[in-house]
Amino acid sequence: MPYSFAAGPARLPDAVLAQARETLFSRGADGAAPVERPFSAPQFRAALAHAQARLRALLGVPDGYRILFLAGGAMHQFAMVPANLATPGGMVAYADSGYWAQRAMAEAARQHQVCVVARHEGTQALAAPPLQGWQLPPGSAYCHITPNETVEGIAYPGLPDVGDVPLVADCTSSFLTAPLPIARFGLVYAGAQKNLGIAGLAVVVIQEALLARSSASLASVASYRLQAQAASCVNTPPVAALLVTAMVLDWIDAQGGLPAMGEANQRKAATLYCAIDASQGFFCAPVALGHRSLVNVRFCCANAALDTVFATEAEAAGLHHLRGHPRIGGLRASLYNAMPQAGVDALVDFMAHFQRRYG
Amino acid sequence: MPYSFAAGPARLPDAVLAQARETLFSRGADGAAPVERPFSAPQFRAALAHAQARLRALLGVPDGYRILFLAGGAMHQFAMVPANLATPGGMVAYADSGYWAQRAMAEAARQHQVCVVARHEGTQALAAPPLQGWQLPPGSAYCHITPNETVEGIAYPGLPDVGDVPLVADCTSSFLTAPLPIARFGLVYAGAQKNLGIAGLAVVVIQEALLARSSASLASVASYRLQAQAASCVNTPPVAALLVTAMVLDWIDAQGGLPAMGEANQRKAATLYCAIDASQGFFCAPVALGHRSLVNVRFCCANAALDTVFATEAEAAGLHHLRGHPRIGGLRASLYNAMPQAGVDALVDFMAHFQRRYG
Repeated sequence: MPYSFAAGPARLPDAVLAQARETLFSRGADGAAPVERPFSAPQFRAALAHAQARLRALLGVPDGYRILFLAGGAMHQFAMVPANLATPGGMVAYADSGYWAQRAMAEAARQHQVCVVARHEGTQALAAPPLQGWQLPPGSAYCHITPNETVEGIAYPGLPDVGDVPLVADCTSSFLTAPLPIARFGLVYAGAQKNLGIAGLAVVVIQEALLARSSASLASVASYRLQAQAASCVNTPPVAALLVTAMVLDWIDAQGGLPAMGEANQRKAATLYCAIDASQGFFCAPVALGHRSLVNVRFCCANAALDTVFATEAEAAGLHHLRGHPRIGGLRASLYNAMPQAGVDALVDFMAHFQRRYG
Repeated sequence: MPYSFAAGPARLPDAVLAQARETLFSRGADGAAPVERPFSAPQFRAALAHAQARLRALLGVPDGYRILFLAGGAMHQFAMVPANLATPGGMVAYADSGYWAQRAMAEAARQHQVCVVARHEGTQALAAPPLQGWQLPPGSAYCHITPNETVEGIAYPGLPDVGDVPLVADCTSSFLTAPLPIARFGLVYAGAQKNLGIAGLAVVVIQEALLARSSASLASVASYRLQAQAASCVNTPPVAALLVTAMVLDWIDAQGGLPAMGEANQRKAATLYCAIDASQGFFCAPVALGHRSLVNVRFCCANAALDTVFATEAEAAGLHHLRGHPRIGGLRASLYNAMPQAGVDALVDFMAHFQRRYG
């Protein structure tokens, strides 16, 4: 205690926080702290190579894929994906699973034709789009999905079959929270500030064959091809963010890698969803079983007027940033990799306490 | 001692280094460290507003200009400037003062017609392009200059008169090292990692009237207009880099602002150039008087074989990162705001010592 359940930027592992505090701003024998060192310095090059290799090992990235570390967040990728993978005005396919899928589509639509190939229909509980029956228009440059919707708290129960069309995924909120079958994707990207470090960095894992699509008219910093050629150093990369990500990757490895992360996240999510479902209707989870996000747990009080009371009293009890996204209200607990089971246990205890008083 | 004379990422003020170490990765009452907090949190919003106001006051930014803090570095601006200010395929004017001006031109040339309006001619000492006689082609969307060339160590002695065409400047290496007449410019930009903080952030000061030029087809994160409307928060900004920049701005203010920075930088540069010029030809400065950079001091040994010996022995003496840019070799000492006079004094002492042994 206290715990922050913020959706991002979000909690870092305690050990990473301590390591960053001790190292990033402390000068070495060359008179420079890691954040003060030229990116051509051997210390930074070694850290970058280490982060690359560690991420490749953790994710099991197959040969034929490249890993890029790029400045900015997932929204920069919303634009870079169509700019690199499609021709101007070309056709791109998107599944509309919620808020962030729609934001990604809106960016693609600025210069490309967007075809929505899947969407959840119906007025019952919230769910991901169905995984069957996607009709991709001929010539689709790729098909884009958002496996975990941070705002709605929805996760796909599997992956769609899109044939030979490269599957592209915005994995920001679920990246490294469980094993991921990279070989199923043409490109996977994630902003760092949820599971991977601090804001200002995005990771892209891209099939090498797709690099040839990057046109020469793209800005160098925004060209996957040129960034791959330059080992993510077309220009000075976001050094501090990259070094924190390197620490997070080492931490994940020390915890047992993605299988261990996946188990811990399953356990945390189960703890919270069970508490909600066992509350006899005092708390509700609006997302359908099988589609519930493991990392962004949405819930609300059946008496909607109590949501604000809950968030306020939770803060007084040391449980912070539990308000839902302003667009949809309610409550939301983000349980990324760095949230310990103890944080979820504290939240569940508080919920029981709250229900006893207001139920 | 030791001192790093790196050209960027570069030295931060000691006080900022200490403040960043103490605060950025330390959790507050809400269970979140500054880097773990949502960017919508009041603490971050206050820091952002404070940085904006402090920079406005330090630079004396007039009404009618907006300040943006954007992810990435100056190279992102190499692309954003033409993309926002010119129409696709339109005419843009650039002065070719050296390596970074050429890099900026190369990015503009990917989608625009670039006209070089000024260039230093002649085989004598290196110098900035002449300030008179610039013939801007009709319809030039803007004219771009690089007031300080980091690689060559060249600075313009003044500003060109480009009439009604907006003057755009890449001020990365000289930003906040002396007062700057913002009203003379349509747009000024700077990567943060030399005088303003750590890598991963760029500052843009833009005349409000130019915001209307940003086309709706631009990516949201890359649109000056949308970033201005969203107070630089179209998406999660690079939080850590921004917080360090806020600290640096406060530090500059506490030193007496830009006039004090300018005086200190004049003094440091004079110390080093005087030592070079007084070495009776043992050390040489290749840049013409009146065009010498105050912050990137280039020099070399008359006996070129000694340059490597100098850099190596300097490192052993605690004076680091003095090798010139790989493109041109020689030696270079970057003396940005955070380099204390004591660092320059130590370098000059070492130079005298070196000359006694090898002269």
